[in-house]
Amino acid sequence: MNFASDNTSGISDRILAAIAEANSGFAGSYGGDDLTARLDDAFGALFETAVTVVPVATGTAANMLSLAAITPPWGGILCGDHSHVMTDECGAAELVTGGAKLFGMATRNAKMRADRLKEALAAWPGGVPHHVQPASLSISQVSEFGAVWQPEEVAQIGAIADAHGLKLHMDGARFANAVATLQCAPADITWKAGVDILSFGATKNGAMAAEAIVVFDPALAESLPFRRMKTGHLLSKSRFLAAQLLAYIEDGHWLALANHSNAMGARLAAALEQAPNARLALKPDANEVFAYLTAPLIEALKAAGATFHGWPAGYPDEANPPREGESLMRFVTSFQTAPEEVDRFAEIVAAT
Amino acid sequence: MNFASDNTSGISDRILAAIAEANSGFAGSYGGDDLTARLDDAFGALFETAVTVVPVATGTAANMLSLAAITPPWGGILCGDHSHVMTDECGAAELVTGGAKLFGMATRNAKMRADRLKEALAAWPGGVPHHVQPASLSISQVSEFGAVWQPEEVAQIGAIADAHGLKLHMDGARFANAVATLQCAPADITWKAGVDILSFGATKNGAMAAEAIVVFDPALAESLPFRRMKTGHLLSKSRFLAAQLLAYIEDGHWLALANHSNAMGARLAAALEQAPNARLALKPDANEVFAYLTAPLIEALKAAGATFHGWPAGYPDEANPPREGESLMRFVTSFQTAPEEVDRFAEIVAAT
Amino acid sequence: MNFASDNTSGISDRILAAIAEANSGFAGSYGGDDLTARLDDAFGALFETAVTVVPVATGTAANMLSLAAITPPWGGILCGDHSHVMTDECGAAELVTGGAKLFGMATRNAKMRADRLKEALAAWPGGVPHHVQPASLSISQVSEFGAVWQPEEVAQIGAIADAHGLKLHMDGARFANAVATLQCAPADITWKAGVDILSFGATKNGAMAAEAIVVFDPALAESLPFRRMKTGHLLSKSRFLAAQLLAYIEDGHWLALANHSNAMGARLAAALEQAPNARLALKPDANEVFAYLTAPLIEALKAAGATFHGWPAGYPDEANPPREGESLMRFVTSFQTAPEEVDRFAEIVAAT
Amino acid sequence: MNFASDNTSGISDRILAAIAEANSGFAGSYGGDDLTARLDDAFGALFETAVTVVPVATGTAANMLSLAAITPPWGGILCGDHSHVMTDECGAAELVTGGAKLFGMATRNAKMRADRLKEALAAWPGGVPHHVQPASLSISQVSEFGAVWQPEEVAQIGAIADAHGLKLHMDGARFANAVATLQCAPADITWKAGVDILSFGATKNGAMAAEAIVVFDPALAESLPFRRMKTGHLLSKSRFLAAQLLAYIEDGHWLALANHSNAMGARLAAALEQAPNARLALKPDANEVFAYLTAPLIEALKAAGATFHGWPAGYPDEANPPREGESLMRFVTSFQTAPEEVDRFAEIVAAT
Repeated sequence: MNFASDNTSGISDRILAAIAEANSGFAGSYGGDDLTARLDDAFGALFETAVTVVPVATGTAANMLSLAAITPPWGGILCGDHSHVMTDECGAAELVTGGAKLFGMATRNAKMRADRLKEALAAWPGGVPHHVQPASLSISQVSEFGAVWQPEEVAQIGAIADAHGLKLHMDGARFANAVATLQCAPADITWKAGVDILSFGATKNGAMAAEAIVVFDPALAESLPFRRMKTGHLLSKSRFLAAQLLAYIEDGHWLALANHSNAMGARLAAALEQAPNARLALKPDANEVFAYLTAPLIEALKAAGATFHGWPAGYPDEANPPREGESLMRFVTSFQTAPEEVDRFAEIVAAT
Repeated sequence: MNFASDNTSGISDRILAAIAEANSGFAGSYGGDDLTARLDDAFGALFETAVTVVPVATGTAANMLSLAAITPPWGGILCGDHSHVMTDECGAAELVTGGAKLFGMATRNAKMRADRLKEALAAWPGGVPHHVQPASLSISQVSEFGAVWQPEEVAQIGAIADAHGLKLHMDGARFANAVATLQCAPADITWKAGVDILSFGATKNGAMAAEAIVVFDPALAESLPFRRMKTGHLLSKSRFLAAQLLAYIEDGHWLALANHSNAMGARLAAALEQAPNARLALKPDANEVFAYLTAPLIEALKAAGATFHGWPAGYPDEANPPREGESLMRFVTSFQTAPEEVDRFAEIVAAT
Repeated sequence: MNFASDNTSGISDRILAAIAEANSGFAGSYGGDDLTARLDDAFGALFETAVTVVPVATGTAANMLSLAAITPPWGGILCGDHSHVMTDECGAAELVTGGAKLFGMATRNAKMRADRLKEALAAWPGGVPHHVQPASLSISQVSEFGAVWQPEEVAQIGAIADAHGLKLHMDGARFANAVATLQCAPADITWKAGVDILSFGATKNGAMAAEAIVVFDPALAESLPFRRMKTGHLLSKSRFLAAQLLAYIEDGHWLALANHSNAMGARLAAALEQAPNARLALKPDANEVFAYLTAPLIEALKAAGATFHGWPAGYPDEANPPREGESLMRFVTSFQTAPEEVDRFAEIVAAT
Repeated sequence: MNFASDNTSGISDRILAAIAEANSGFAGSYGGDDLTARLDDAFGALFETAVTVVPVATGTAANMLSLAAITPPWGGILCGDHSHVMTDECGAAELVTGGAKLFGMATRNAKMRADRLKEALAAWPGGVPHHVQPASLSISQVSEFGAVWQPEEVAQIGAIADAHGLKLHMDGARFANAVATLQCAPADITWKAGVDILSFGATKNGAMAAEAIVVFDPALAESLPFRRMKTGHLLSKSRFLAAQLLAYIEDGHWLALANHSNAMGARLAAALEQAPNARLALKPDANEVFAYLTAPLIEALKAAGATFHGWPAGYPDEANPPREGESLMRFVTSFQTAPEEVDRFAEIVAAT
């Protein structure tokens, strides 16, 4: 009953096999291998447009490098107030950009509110060197409260970015889960909706350590090989990074994994919905479930060996605050979550 | 006949097996797993002293984070003029330290010369804020020209560091090859000789992507978890990084790999030593062979499919410069180098 | 009728004379002059304790260097949500610290609220490398809404800093105005109340371009000469910086200037208090007056040549929000403000 | 007999008067004043082309901001091996660029050698992300060994910059002395010769603290207001910075000051040329005189109260090294140097 995070899961069989398969003989290093050479085309096919792919081993690396590619040192990065780049990366973007500033915008379900974003941009003292100047936007798909951005919602943010000359970054740590939910083309929630650069996550959904920066605007890609090297993120045995990413997107493997993960999330949410001592804080769109639990239930679950985290800051839906005696908890399912485990969880929830 | 670099090799069987073995069920992320928990003790046993281990995926990450831990923004990092940190990491240390400055000290066989180092330090305008102040030293074991530091040579540098209040970093990208050559205890060329922090490389010698920052002075380790996160180098599925490192040092696997690699280097050097159209630029100590080749031999080797690189800057031994018509070439062997390949290489060398 | 800012004023006669007087013959450069040599003692006498003084030419330089001296790259700087360091310095602290993060804490009258600060610190996920760790606090004396910190209020923040192992910085851009209001010893609102490092402003109150970083903890001063040089803030003809600072604090000149400035602020506030089309947004403590004005009055004042700025973000007192048709305006008086000008302003205010 | 540096001099009478004159009433701050508004035109007239002027208070600020405007974080700045930006600014450029790397190129008389520069650029592994990529050149006019660049020499460097797509910066800390020597138009040694951005120094030659970044390519100027603010270099009472710069270039005042300074340099050099215990290390072009002196003469001069510095690293002319018993000394004259003082110096030199 490990629902602590999807990154407590391991490597999918296909991806592990791909690593093993890539392990034959010698290969060019630092990106000079045949597998890395295939990335641009493979992701281009997936996204139905020409892209440049810059593979790295961590999501923070993907985010910080993406943001540095679109934000000058005196630039502002407008992101969600609960966003990972804002709160969970120890100020990586601030360092790598040379001192840019992140602004936590108001969100709904951790999705940046277009109305508030517009207001903030309208009120910005533009061009005055005292003030950091808006340069980029960053949104998370799936959001940090487990909500999925609809294509038209992304497009709304994309249009604002466009109107203000800003670049739009998407932190797609759970991009697969979003596409699985939406059953849309990856293009629909990225470049067609105004996204300029994407952190395409694979690690949380079955890779060992692999994320792809997918750049839709070739001009933005120019600095990335240098920035990646300068931050120590160019892997010498790059074939193994490429092998993970190729196996991940081949034959819809990434969506198969995400479908399972999402299904487990829905199963878990269903259990909580009917619970006497728990209720959903937000109806989940993908594999993250936020719910209010009472102390006895939390205790019972922990006693039974369930793993999950309390959520310290805020709650997903203003209209649905915690009540006396309730605490906000996050449950994350993954490609590896067994239905039996969710059912065991459900039994405890139903019985407590 | 791939002698381009040891990082064109793949993953050793034991290490790949360890990755697969670690892939069972769920595990704490971001270092909260059982394998990561074992690193300090395992490396402590190897180094015969208490150490703190900070695992990362690349050598540049290990180097830049190590140097940042021992160098303030106004500090000088004195390193070899041919050193990897100086010439091959795109200024990573400069970024991560907040603007420190690297000084390429005179070397012999790419090993920093103690006499020249002393002179440089004696002449330094100490304490004057106009000038970057010496803060740290960095030496490479094996050196970039394939020479191994003897314990007493390291100790000589360590004593200089100590006398000037500097911290000593060792870039041990090929640490295993050095220990294999020296048949010494790892302690003898590190903390016992004054090394404060070590980039313990595994990737070039059989890991997929794994390096350990080994910190001998606990005070220096305090900033590293934050610096690692802030540069995007904390892997979420950290168990796989730890699994590589543990398998690497278990049962002397790392030395077995290095012994083979070194033996192949010696075999290759022997072939070049007797060649009509080649001669060694420096007698190799480990798995990197630098030799002067004539154009016809280079051409013949390339025609036969051999892979190796010319070396653009300088040459290892002042007393042994290239002659007219010769070019300096580098050949690197690895744990994966087959004796038959070296022999095929030797045949061409002998016949051309 | 220039009430745009106190930095639209010029140089006080005494300070200009001091510059001229310092201009005789040759003097050691880069701080090696006799006037600079007197700074530590002169400010030590003023603050009744041993201090280290680091003179610079701008307030932003004083703030960013102070914050860098007390905040590591992964540190959090907790400051007021309306603070100058947060909103008006283009992310200088972020750059110079190597990527630290500023957190805008809730304020009352732009003074950081001790209760909210405590809550924020209590809720901080301490020691987790994902999150920037609180390292320092920064408060502004006078606050950005013109409110003066009482000694016991500073001490309350100082105690919190102490309890959490944080360093306390005071942005004293209008430190003189605060002391003039409080009629306290400078020590009472600085080191005796827990302030570790102070940006002691002189420019806004009569200097040409001179601010003193006053360091109360000698250990914090060690890095500053290097950081100052590394950011280009060491003036070669340093005697003229020292001359300004010495003349400023000599014979209570700084307080005489501030007394006048504050008196003009009070005179201006009195005029607004009785106005038919204006009302104070906050009773001013020093030389900054925030008031709500109606559009006709704003127009009448501008038409008569008055200079002042609207205040874009927030308002000083939650209990006293703007009403329909009112806009928040800031009026700043200075040592140079003529009573006649304030009276002329008052006439228009009374008549409109 | 103060020949320690031209920055031990004070403020010229005209410039001090201009500061006093600017001190009347109120003026817009942060560059919003009438004097600052005149800078672009005034310098445009001086340089016979449209320019953007960014005034700052120190030469290091001018240099570091100029270099940041033309160098990305992964860029290389190729400068002279004795250059001020390389050796005397505590790594300011490294910090402000976000980690760029300075390369000390071989020089003659501290002037970058075009032949060696070409060789270095030809050998650079272009486009490889492991290596910092050449982005900018920086030359010092007058050079750090007191040699003046002829227009055609600058043009030679400018052509190389052009051919390699590099931007050319000139550190003109002693630009006035160079123009005084050359009796050329300022345009001849700047934009007409390929200089893109100039640190136009005034402080060493009579200003209190004023340097102008003169940008010849408008595109390069765009980032500077933000970079200046972000490093704390925007002065609030900016009129006094502008007043210094305008007075400096008005009526040829800058050249009058430099002519005197140069004449004093020549007078001092003449004295050393005929000395029994001294000889010139390089025939000086402007106001810096490098000479070899014996210990008794050094002692005699110091005993008589002369101030000057030994030069620690290298010597100006390979063909003219120091001999046994000689030490390299630097003597700098300034606009304030009295002929009588030089003559007193000459007497001691002749008599010892």
